[in-house]
Amino acid sequence: MTAGRLAVVGLGPGGAAWRTPEASERLAGATDLIGYGPYLRLVGDLEPPPVRHEFDNREEAQRAQFALELAADGRDVVVVSSGDPGVFAMATAVVEELHRSAPGHYDMVELTIIPGVTAASAAAARVGAPLGHDFCCISLSDVLKPWPVVEQRLAAVGGADLVVALYNPVSTHRPWQLGRAIEILRGHRPRTTPVVLARNVGRDGEETWVTTLDAFDEGPVDMSTVVIVGSSTTRSFRDGRGRTWVYTPRTYPAASP
Amino acid sequence: MTAGRLAVVGLGPGGAAWRTPEASERLAGATDLIGYGPYLRLVGDLEPPPVRHEFDNREEAQRAQFALELAADGRDVVVVSSGDPGVFAMATAVVEELHRSAPGHYDMVELTIIPGVTAASAAAARVGAPLGHDFCCISLSDVLKPWPVVEQRLAAVGGADLVVALYNPVSTHRPWQLGRAIEILRGHRPRTTPVVLARNVGRDGEETWVTTLDAFDEGPVDMSTVVIVGSSTTRSFRDGRGRTWVYTPRTYPAASP
Repeated sequence: MTAGRLAVVGLGPGGAAWRTPEASERLAGATDLIGYGPYLRLVGDLEPPPVRHEFDNREEAQRAQFALELAADGRDVVVVSSGDPGVFAMATAVVEELHRSAPGHYDMVELTIIPGVTAASAAAARVGAPLGHDFCCISLSDVLKPWPVVEQRLAAVGGADLVVALYNPVSTHRPWQLGRAIEILRGHRPRTTPVVLARNVGRDGEETWVTTLDAFDEGPVDMSTVVIVGSSTTRSFRDGRGRTWVYTPRTYPAASP
Repeated sequence: MTAGRLAVVGLGPGGAAWRTPEASERLAGATDLIGYGPYLRLVGDLEPPPVRHEFDNREEAQRAQFALELAADGRDVVVVSSGDPGVFAMATAVVEELHRSAPGHYDMVELTIIPGVTAASAAAARVGAPLGHDFCCISLSDVLKPWPVVEQRLAAVGGADLVVALYNPVSTHRPWQLGRAIEILRGHRPRTTPVVLARNVGRDGEETWVTTLDAFDEGPVDMSTVVIVGSSTTRSFRDGRGRTWVYTPRTYPAASP
């Protein structure tokens, strides 16, 4: 029996310019690609063309199990994720499925996780360096965790003055969570705190806005947007070329005596 | 006068396999590379060879100013960072220097930040997906921020049950901070919580360990190590091939009634 292999590959947040050589190499040799439709399309054409298995975005456990089964059958399988597959994405679903499986069932499968540039890094780069000091990444989706847990976390990191990158800020079924998150952070930060909204970073239709906690308007935010809320030390300014920059200095002031 | 340009480039955590095409392309055209010696050596040979300006790791503001000045003189300058330049690295120093400069002084300079795979993503990929749920990245260096701020943050994220990635865990001048950080997190997590230590990820001498909060030993940790402390839901297991995996499920349980 031939051993199959399975890679969970991070495409990076956009097109080929942010895809690592390791990711591209693995994609090029695959017999089967598995993923959410828009991510499969980000891959582009491959020669020879692999079989593409398109799944709905919510069917993570099924996708993971299907991928492991294909690899156990001796195929060279790639599960694609946007950004980094380890951050709110498919790597954890695949490893969890491996953990749940009957002992020995997937012993022939060689599993590899191939990291990528995560969306927050790419969004931050577009405006400077808002993640230059301590920060956190929190998903606003309450599909898989209770909303009170999200609120408690936002209050904790708000109080601890971490920069906050919000993933999955809104969806059709979750219209009010982002507004509530901003309201919680307003309770801990100056109203002038910079907020960065970055949509479709590295892809067609890329747009970036810099606003403040006070002026924040969730209008332009969608599922493909990352929202970064600065800490009390995050600064923004406009340079002589008219471009707005945001950064969080690495130096943090001592408390006043 | 020719407009110069300046890119702050993330090399990714290791060698060329994790370097994005955008980063490689920008490096290939540079007239001048600026960076900490070990990062300059990670770049490898380039043709035609750029001038390499080696700086000490601590001289961040000087490095940033030097880079902006060279670019203002019309050169094609790259500041190199390991991992992602926006995470505890040079992007924030360069943007801060631009903010501090006299109005108009660097108006000719076209500045770009080129994101990379950050060390925590790469470390996580080696063992599975410990960053699969809400997490934070905290630097343990108290060179630029007061230690009590670090302790307060660790207590906050410990209480909020975030996975914690610790950057800059130790140095010759900071021998005890990591032990104290682990002690704080032990107060908030089960003793069996998985802890991942990843040293030189993607480079020569790469080593990864999986331990627990209880058994944690800082012996192998050095400046090139990332330490990831799981949350209460992070799991580890050994597969049929003898490999140890760590993951944090995306699903978070509701509080008991």
